[in-house]
Amino acid sequence: MTTTTTPPPSTPLPKGEGAIGSKLPGRAHETCAYLDYNATTPIYPEVAAAMEPFLWEHFGNPSSGHAFAAPCRDAIATARNRVATVLGCAPDEIVFTSCGSESDNHAIASAVEHARRSAGGRGGRVPHVVTTAVEHPAILGAFYTLEAKGTLAYDAVRVNAEGIVDPGDVAAAVREETCLVTVMHANNEVGAIQPVAACAAAARAKNPRVLVHADAAQSLGKIPVKVDLLGVDMCTIVGHKIGAPKGVAALYVKKTAPFSKLFHGGGQESGRRAGTENVMHVVGLGAACALVTKEEDALPSYMATLRDAMQRALVAELGGDDGAGVRVNGPANDADRLPNTLSVGVKGVSASVLLQTLSSSVAASAGAACHTGAAAASISSVLRAMEIPEAYAVGTLRLSVGRHTTTSDVEVGVKRIADAARAQISEIDAMPEGERPAWCVRNVFK
Amino acid sequence: MTTTTTPPPSTPLPKGEGAIGSKLPGRAHETCAYLDYNATTPIYPEVAAAMEPFLWEHFGNPSSGHAFAAPCRDAIATARNRVATVLGCAPDEIVFTSCGSESDNHAIASAVEHARRSAGGRGGRVPHVVTTAVEHPAILGAFYTLEAKGTLAYDAVRVNAEGIVDPGDVAAAVREETCLVTVMHANNEVGAIQPVAACAAAARAKNPRVLVHADAAQSLGKIPVKVDLLGVDMCTIVGHKIGAPKGVAALYVKKTAPFSKLFHGGGQESGRRAGTENVMHVVGLGAACALVTKEEDALPSYMATLRDAMQRALVAELGGDDGAGVRVNGPANDADRLPNTLSVGVKGVSASVLLQTLSSSVAASAGAACHTGAAAASISSVLRAMEIPEAYAVGTLRLSVGRHTTTSDVEVGVKRIADAARAQISEIDAMPEGERPAWCVRNVFK
Repeated sequence: MTTTTTPPPSTPLPKGEGAIGSKLPGRAHETCAYLDYNATTPIYPEVAAAMEPFLWEHFGNPSSGHAFAAPCRDAIATARNRVATVLGCAPDEIVFTSCGSESDNHAIASAVEHARRSAGGRGGRVPHVVTTAVEHPAILGAFYTLEAKGTLAYDAVRVNAEGIVDPGDVAAAVREETCLVTVMHANNEVGAIQPVAACAAAARAKNPRVLVHADAAQSLGKIPVKVDLLGVDMCTIVGHKIGAPKGVAALYVKKTAPFSKLFHGGGQESGRRAGTENVMHVVGLGAACALVTKEEDALPSYMATLRDAMQRALVAELGGDDGAGVRVNGPANDADRLPNTLSVGVKGVSASVLLQTLSSSVAASAGAACHTGAAAASISSVLRAMEIPEAYAVGTLRLSVGRHTTTSDVEVGVKRIADAARAQISEIDAMPEGERPAWCVRNVFK
Repeated sequence: MTTTTTPPPSTPLPKGEGAIGSKLPGRAHETCAYLDYNATTPIYPEVAAAMEPFLWEHFGNPSSGHAFAAPCRDAIATARNRVATVLGCAPDEIVFTSCGSESDNHAIASAVEHARRSAGGRGGRVPHVVTTAVEHPAILGAFYTLEAKGTLAYDAVRVNAEGIVDPGDVAAAVREETCLVTVMHANNEVGAIQPVAACAAAARAKNPRVLVHADAAQSLGKIPVKVDLLGVDMCTIVGHKIGAPKGVAALYVKKTAPFSKLFHGGGQESGRRAGTENVMHVVGLGAACALVTKEEDALPSYMATLRDAMQRALVAELGGDDGAGVRVNGPANDADRLPNTLSVGVKGVSASVLLQTLSSSVAASAGAACHTGAAAASISSVLRAMEIPEAYAVGTLRLSVGRHTTTSDVEVGVKRIADAARAQISEIDAMPEGERPAWCVRNVFK
């Protein structure tokens, strides 16, 4: 990776043109610093421009045989090629879906159905799956529900204090009846990059029949996602994390992997996913993947520069990890952390209360929800799995930058966060102990 | 319903404005008559205009708590109200999905899961479902696959020669262990409107525990779809059949009906459908439903006028049902047929070959696929269920008009179809019998 970044243009670009670092139009950007790219990205201008003809002009059903269908069918084929290029696979290994949750649920259903079909020879035991304790709810929530229904049994392997799983732990959890190992490529909250390839190899050494899936929703566009290097049979990518719209995603399925449908009906997606294609959004996903390919060096480098500046500025404002200031959650080694992500615990504040105060001036996420009157904060499962000290978990801000974050967004955002944090701390300090909010009485000031 | 129709404007409307009968821009419309509204509709200009701010400006994740989220969350709430208004239900009875196939598959999965959970008391028999022989593949294909897997057993009730099911037949198929009756509101191919309310009542009289689902993908916007009048527990509607984009649909689920998730994960859609919301498309579905409400009298009336003119013109060109010309498939009574649909068998031609010839000048669908060298035509399951004579089935054109079909589309389209049909008949007549294509040797000229 080079360290070259594209400088922000001094004047707004014409509609539909974009560049790394260019400020997007839109009233909200005038007053609110958007530091929440891991929650969702804007639709990048080039992507919107690619989609627009499918909003106003091209509308045929790709399955039809006439003139209105051809532009839509061709556009889907182009998009499929672009997605395949970025992942390093064949176009016919890509199935378009409606969201990351569908892709994840589909991967699970497919593996479990395969296990069910081949169960005859292995005593009819309920299929077993292995995952990590820091997965997205579309994985952990699905396993929880399916285990309750008796469809499968699962083990969620622990992570270390940096949020990283040990491939040895994954292999240790794999059993004779394990049909699937699913490990997210990078964590959305703390940016921890998992050793997916090592997990896949270790799992297969223990049981060569396991299928391996990775949820790459948060890694694509930030670090390389090549399915052969990851060693996966299935892989989820998500449009709205890379500049495409919400409502489109894809599931990579290796040609040799077993596959079952989640939706039955028409023969779309080569018979793998029924439903008339979301042409406009598929075009958007393809255009976004083409940008990922084009900017594979420049964008991560730009994001890392901004993220590092943000981290330095926050420590300068609020103090470092000396027991009184901010503490960075996640991997200490930059190679193990997404270049755009900063999960930072601010001691003495409730991040969710702070972000409520800042809701019209800073857009970010919190690591815990603190509700008025609640006896305790609801700490995210990721921070709990990492055993982050409660005071820092309650104060955890999840900040994430991206292609159209500007230097000003970072500077202004940090200043507003620091001011609000100091104000919250002063306000609480001024309260008699018995009147302090439940979360801070319980968790912070001891 | 009134018979008032809005006259087509003489000059093109400004971008984003639309009216019944206005000609849409787009190069394909210059050369090709679009008569395939049942396959998919264009995105109506007002709908595209409502969506466009969500392409270029508003992008927040509706689940976030900051300024970028609010316009998206509000837009989803508005859309939900609009969908609820058109169906006559409460907003919280609407679950947004990605396509009609998802809605249909979800309804099935939900009913089967409910049956599974309550099976204890009824001997653990495999859940049974009842449907009709003319359903969409998202219903029939799902049942076929799920029966093969042992998940359920199903009966597909026959229809009469007009494509209509008898409620008595539906009730007769209902058993003690029947958990779901699903009957499409109107058929996509021949426009037959099913007596859903009577089917629901008859089924419940036999077994009060059955859930009733209707696929209203083709009826909404053409005839009233009110869930209370239909007497259904669940109902599928689809965006791209009413002027919204492909890639969005909804499932109505009655407040009192049991419900299980198809996708597990985040808490979107009040915990009923995981996955970040497709905000742009949901906005489109809402805007399209608002148009359905606004034009509930005028649009069906406009469509019926065009469709009737098309039917008369085709008969005038090719001759009526006297054994040598065209024969209309589906209900004879206009009240039993969608106002926009004309399924017509042209004796002596292969409609699929004819439409291939016309692929750049007339956009329509065929009732059977005739492949070079194949021993027989592959006739649609709907026409087979209706026992349409083979000669007419092979020659069946599925023509459907809509909001932006113009009088010229109909006139030009019919002329081109009639010319091509005469040419095809002459060409085949001129062939020695042994060299005629397989489909016509087998099916037509005896």
